[in-house]
Amino acid sequence: MAQATRERLGDLERLRALYPLVRRRTEELCAPLRVEDLVVQSMPDASPAKWHLAHTSWFFETFVLRPALAGYRLFHPAYPALFNSYYESAGERHPRPERGHLSRPTVAEVRAYRAHVDGGMLAMLAGEAARIDAQLAFTIELGLNHEEQHQELLLTDVKHLLGTQPLRPAYREAAVTARAPAATAPGGWASFDGGLVELGHAGAGFAFDNECPRHRRYLEPFELARYPVTCGEYLEFVADGGYARAELWLSDGWDARAAHGWSAPLHWFPVDGAWQLYTLDGPRPLALDEPVCHVSFYEADAYARWKGARLPREEEWEHAAEGEPLAGNLLESGRMHPAPAGPGGARLDQAFGDVWEWCASAYAPYPGFRPFPGGLGEYNGKWMSNRYVLRGGSCVTPARHLRASYRNFFGPEARWQFSGLRLARGSVEA
Amino acid sequence: MAQATRERLGDLERLRALYPLVRRRTEELCAPLRVEDLVVQSMPDASPAKWHLAHTSWFFETFVLRPALAGYRLFHPAYPALFNSYYESAGERHPRPERGHLSRPTVAEVRAYRAHVDGGMLAMLAGEAARIDAQLAFTIELGLNHEEQHQELLLTDVKHLLGTQPLRPAYREAAVTARAPAATAPGGWASFDGGLVELGHAGAGFAFDNECPRHRRYLEPFELARYPVTCGEYLEFVADGGYARAELWLSDGWDARAAHGWSAPLHWFPVDGAWQLYTLDGPRPLALDEPVCHVSFYEADAYARWKGARLPREEEWEHAAEGEPLAGNLLESGRMHPAPAGPGGARLDQAFGDVWEWCASAYAPYPGFRPFPGGLGEYNGKWMSNRYVLRGGSCVTPARHLRASYRNFFGPEARWQFSGLRLARGSVEA
Amino acid sequence: MAQATRERLGDLERLRALYPLVRRRTEELCAPLRVEDLVVQSMPDASPAKWHLAHTSWFFETFVLRPALAGYRLFHPAYPALFNSYYESAGERHPRPERGHLSRPTVAEVRAYRAHVDGGMLAMLAGEAARIDAQLAFTIELGLNHEEQHQELLLTDVKHLLGTQPLRPAYREAAVTARAPAATAPGGWASFDGGLVELGHAGAGFAFDNECPRHRRYLEPFELARYPVTCGEYLEFVADGGYARAELWLSDGWDARAAHGWSAPLHWFPVDGAWQLYTLDGPRPLALDEPVCHVSFYEADAYARWKGARLPREEEWEHAAEGEPLAGNLLESGRMHPAPAGPGGARLDQAFGDVWEWCASAYAPYPGFRPFPGGLGEYNGKWMSNRYVLRGGSCVTPARHLRASYRNFFGPEARWQFSGLRLARGSVEA
Amino acid sequence: MAQATRERLGDLERLRALYPLVRRRTEELCAPLRVEDLVVQSMPDASPAKWHLAHTSWFFETFVLRPALAGYRLFHPAYPALFNSYYESAGERHPRPERGHLSRPTVAEVRAYRAHVDGGMLAMLAGEAARIDAQLAFTIELGLNHEEQHQELLLTDVKHLLGTQPLRPAYREAAVTARAPAATAPGGWASFDGGLVELGHAGAGFAFDNECPRHRRYLEPFELARYPVTCGEYLEFVADGGYARAELWLSDGWDARAAHGWSAPLHWFPVDGAWQLYTLDGPRPLALDEPVCHVSFYEADAYARWKGARLPREEEWEHAAEGEPLAGNLLESGRMHPAPAGPGGARLDQAFGDVWEWCASAYAPYPGFRPFPGGLGEYNGKWMSNRYVLRGGSCVTPARHLRASYRNFFGPEARWQFSGLRLARGSVEA
Repeated sequence: MAQATRERLGDLERLRALYPLVRRRTEELCAPLRVEDLVVQSMPDASPAKWHLAHTSWFFETFVLRPALAGYRLFHPAYPALFNSYYESAGERHPRPERGHLSRPTVAEVRAYRAHVDGGMLAMLAGEAARIDAQLAFTIELGLNHEEQHQELLLTDVKHLLGTQPLRPAYREAAVTARAPAATAPGGWASFDGGLVELGHAGAGFAFDNECPRHRRYLEPFELARYPVTCGEYLEFVADGGYARAELWLSDGWDARAAHGWSAPLHWFPVDGAWQLYTLDGPRPLALDEPVCHVSFYEADAYARWKGARLPREEEWEHAAEGEPLAGNLLESGRMHPAPAGPGGARLDQAFGDVWEWCASAYAPYPGFRPFPGGLGEYNGKWMSNRYVLRGGSCVTPARHLRASYRNFFGPEARWQFSGLRLARGSVEA
Repeated sequence: MAQATRERLGDLERLRALYPLVRRRTEELCAPLRVEDLVVQSMPDASPAKWHLAHTSWFFETFVLRPALAGYRLFHPAYPALFNSYYESAGERHPRPERGHLSRPTVAEVRAYRAHVDGGMLAMLAGEAARIDAQLAFTIELGLNHEEQHQELLLTDVKHLLGTQPLRPAYREAAVTARAPAATAPGGWASFDGGLVELGHAGAGFAFDNECPRHRRYLEPFELARYPVTCGEYLEFVADGGYARAELWLSDGWDARAAHGWSAPLHWFPVDGAWQLYTLDGPRPLALDEPVCHVSFYEADAYARWKGARLPREEEWEHAAEGEPLAGNLLESGRMHPAPAGPGGARLDQAFGDVWEWCASAYAPYPGFRPFPGGLGEYNGKWMSNRYVLRGGSCVTPARHLRASYRNFFGPEARWQFSGLRLARGSVEA
Repeated sequence: MAQATRERLGDLERLRALYPLVRRRTEELCAPLRVEDLVVQSMPDASPAKWHLAHTSWFFETFVLRPALAGYRLFHPAYPALFNSYYESAGERHPRPERGHLSRPTVAEVRAYRAHVDGGMLAMLAGEAARIDAQLAFTIELGLNHEEQHQELLLTDVKHLLGTQPLRPAYREAAVTARAPAATAPGGWASFDGGLVELGHAGAGFAFDNECPRHRRYLEPFELARYPVTCGEYLEFVADGGYARAELWLSDGWDARAAHGWSAPLHWFPVDGAWQLYTLDGPRPLALDEPVCHVSFYEADAYARWKGARLPREEEWEHAAEGEPLAGNLLESGRMHPAPAGPGGARLDQAFGDVWEWCASAYAPYPGFRPFPGGLGEYNGKWMSNRYVLRGGSCVTPARHLRASYRNFFGPEARWQFSGLRLARGSVEA
Repeated sequence: MAQATRERLGDLERLRALYPLVRRRTEELCAPLRVEDLVVQSMPDASPAKWHLAHTSWFFETFVLRPALAGYRLFHPAYPALFNSYYESAGERHPRPERGHLSRPTVAEVRAYRAHVDGGMLAMLAGEAARIDAQLAFTIELGLNHEEQHQELLLTDVKHLLGTQPLRPAYREAAVTARAPAATAPGGWASFDGGLVELGHAGAGFAFDNECPRHRRYLEPFELARYPVTCGEYLEFVADGGYARAELWLSDGWDARAAHGWSAPLHWFPVDGAWQLYTLDGPRPLALDEPVCHVSFYEADAYARWKGARLPREEEWEHAAEGEPLAGNLLESGRMHPAPAGPGGARLDQAFGDVWEWCASAYAPYPGFRPFPGGLGEYNGKWMSNRYVLRGGSCVTPARHLRASYRNFFGPEARWQFSGLRLARGSVEA
């Protein structure tokens, strides 16, 4: 048996094992929710949990089963349009801001849809390996990565839904994880020499098109803060009038602040003069030693300016993080909230997990970028304007999903992700 | 025992019997719905069914139990603000367009809230009559009328929700009521002499403040169509380019038409070149002999102009309808859709029930109008601008709820009620 | 010579004399303005003065010269669309909110356009009488009335433009008219018996279609305040927190107040804690004895409710005013601002002139209303929704233009006209 | 005399000579305009020409005269707020979208304001050199560069005003410059090796803060088109359905296209099936050999994708252009429109002048960027989000004003500048 064939068979073996695990976790994340919570869309940027359940199935149906499974029968003729997110090449779609108007299909019907798609997928994966060529295997892998992205979105959308309604219910019964205070007083800088470095995905594993190709960049010497900015540090910015001092803000940020009435991160709310924090375990007092999160790019940028620093460029972040172990407070910890600093030791602490770290870099194609072929080319490439890069994953990112080269991206006003920041400074600025 | 006391006791007896009937019917109307259907708000004008369930309870809690039941305990401290509709005097309230963002309280919790309020109300009604003075008895009666209004709104909101989403599911399993074709070919005019007539509520029964006081109006001689305009008649207007001829429309109506993209009544939709109609029993072909409904004031007005007629003034309508029996295709028929004309015989057929009939009259206070005292003064009076009067009830109006003097009112763009029209003409215009 | 012919000749004689007078006055009203002032549109509801100059000419060109003057040559092929206000039947038109984007034609070119149209009109009027039939003579008369309406609009639009920009320049060098204090302390009520009265235009003179036909109404006995509400009286409402008390306002008014940030009439502005008033003669301190103006329908309505009264119905107003002499502080006084009460004596003082008086009546067709024939039918009829009637003219209404039956109408949020109010109460309410 | 002192005196000498030249040119650019054209604001992004005249004076008054000229008297106490563009640190300001509401000050008054400021400035420049330190001299130089930027904006704003109103008048009497056809058939690519290059301003001359500091970048090998894209080439994109093919567009661009109804560049308009072009000399047929302009970043990006290429990164552009002579079709040519290609010869033709060239690069700070000190720090730095860089100047950029390192920036939807594009490709993409 040729080496390539053995590799592909191994790959199929892996997908056969992985597929049910990933799919099951999406459903488990919905388990604590009431039917009511699965239906509501709390803002146009967010989607109902029910929609996530359906759309992730639509992805497999559209890009795997319909083109590649002989005899596949559509579960429902209206679903392709109902659950298409943004693929122009995949035909009509229901308007995004009206996803929450869909009381039907019901949650039970969506679960039946998932089961139907799973049936097709498992049949395909169990079938003759010859039917699954390398491209198709890649698309299945992409579908699983896609579903992992939606696991994170599902949790942040649910957090927005529950945390911005008056009753602010917890997502789940209080988690058992004890909350240890920070083991170290966060602080300090890690220095990097820069020079001509390499950036982008390399190697055999899965990566998105936007991480490729690996290419060179020249970096001036720079420093990154050893820890993400904490709530306590951010509170000083708030207390110093940070939200009322125009000179600290980008002009568009200053306007966004006024338009949305920002005076603190999302999910902070005052009770009797003290800040409370809404978490997926419900509201509780702000913990000063936890990384701040739910700030927009504009807030992160203003904080950095107030502090006499700046946000890292994504090439700085990636170069620095390549040396760190790919571990941290990720979805598997079950904590679902950023944690205080641990005992430290690494050059960069909490590089992975806890909070996505806003970068100074606009989201743009790498030199030599090629989108995925066909309709999947819309996955990443068409979003490459007006968005900023975030790096490092969060407390609700699946561990398997993350890499040092991973590029997340959101508009500069977005606050509902677990988005925080780490300061940077250059030898010039320092 | 004095006469007044006996009357009041009789009245209490009546309320004791009535209260559970009215309250139960609201819940029965929700029975065919899935939890998902109870949560969604399909447009800012509409409310989730769950919200109707809660708000009608809030009304009794706010205006009866809290002021008058000693020891009444609030079910939940946040509910007074969550379920206040528009009463400035009752304190804070959740923004109307965000009623659909509330996944909590759940449907089950709202049902518990209803039970809690019912407990208080039944205890009060079962208690010493002396505790319930005439004013309080009136407020309870008002609360029941209020709940009946919300029964109709609940059904029209649900119809909007289900009928404007892609799957267009039926509200219920197909009703058993057979659909008889029209017994008569609708047509003809009924003439009225006019003169100095009386208008407004008279007598002992319940009425809203906006129906009072009874007062005199002078009417020129006029004619009313014997039947409401049918779908078949309206279809001629559509086919004649009625939606594209500016000269038929009020200027604001012409603009509303363009802004909303109207080309037919709400709930009409084309399939293969033929009009389908969404009903609470699901979609089916348009029936030409049924009264047209789900038209705005502007469409009703344009149709009338196209026909060389006009809409009735509310005083004409009321004067004409006073002679008709208070009966028709109302909620109790179970049909939940306008019916073809019956055998006729009355001067005005289908005056009550089937469709609300848009009047030419802006909603305004009668001479000598006094709003209900206190906070309940906001019930009707503050809406007396920019709205038009509709008369006669619809196929989803509870029979008990209706009177010839009853004034319903909506903005001229509203289409989601069962709103149709009946033509009028004056001796001058004819 | 037959009587009818003699009458028509007399009528033509009158039009020949009148036409240049009316046209010249429009231009005279622009004389104090700089070119810059003639171009700017300060809000979508207002038009640049230059546009008024052109549009009034367009009216004669479109409805008189093009259909009836043989050989008439268009001044410019683009002007018919540029200066059409809202006549759908007259073809395309430039969007209203963009009237201020037109730097061209220049003011000088618009003046040449006026001269061109005047040439045609004077030639027609000087020509053979036989060419001008009764319908055409009526259209010319309508064109002059139309121009008089635009004289008032031109002044209120200019007042809005000048009074809402930071420098608040005066429209003209201070007028010479001395400002006498009120000769009487305004107050008191005039009583009317009501009964079956007649309403609407009667007689031979010009009237708009919306004033016709004369018809009967039944009025309950009522009282009208002898004087319009003064600034001093309105100031008490302001000082009593009138703009912060929801119970005084219609719901739509309460929302409009918040949306626009109203806390006093338009053109009031605070300086060092005292109210200043912008007038066409520039800013000066508020004079308490002058009628309040530049209030919306909602503010007028709220004031009346605060005072325990209400706004007059238009039929009450007209019935009461029919007995008053058609005289007052009108455009010809040159004051261009409401004046304090005179020596009184009439039952209603200041019924004509000073300020338009908001009525409680929605603008609606009279029984038997017929719009002007043809395209001119759009003049009044299509606006009969969502507007309220104002009566009595203002300090910038040409005297010739006014009648007791005259119906002005604006949306309930409009404040830039000289709109004030007079209180009413019924025998029931009193 | 020390070298530094001699240099500064030379610098002052230069400023003394330069100041009146720059100031006079702003006024000369207004000479062909009517008063009406100077007042109107045709969209929120644009300003009235009158405002440019005043604001450029405000800049000198605010940053030079008020802080540094003893005894300077404000021309008018309201002007500092009226003519502040966006400097939060300079106090209140009139809202940008309402600049066109200001009929006052008049044009004549604004000219007087200019003269007043010029008086102060000339007095200062003529005064003792000791009074003008290096920082102040720099601020004066900045004020002149600022005025040059507004000269270009004034012309593009005027072009938008005149070209988007129905009469489309020419800005000036037809220019005398003959229009020669292209001397070469544009085409071909210039190759660059890349490597570690330097980027940013170097040397002694004036530069904006955003061009600094000079720093290193690593470039992969790349190619730039020798010529900007022409109208003829762009027309092929239009004819190929470029505006209707989602796969060619960034997602935000696709939405912008739909929202604004784009189907061709700004200032193209169809007449009898052929494209006409509005130029500052008035409308004329599209010339296929001229560089295309008035396209947004999104259109430029879509065109490049359609062509299988991409936009240049700003570092590529600057590196390539550093070798080109700083000359071209700039404001001084008097053409005020892009010209066809000349005889060629340079590696990059038309690098400077003709059209600003959209880059793929989001506008961001260079490593080590420091904003100008004090209030002038708002000049460039706060705009560094959501904007894209354009390079190379246009046919209305003053020659003195331009450099290879010059970074212009606009939002990706902006089309009213003379913005075109030049294609790029990498060795990887080629």
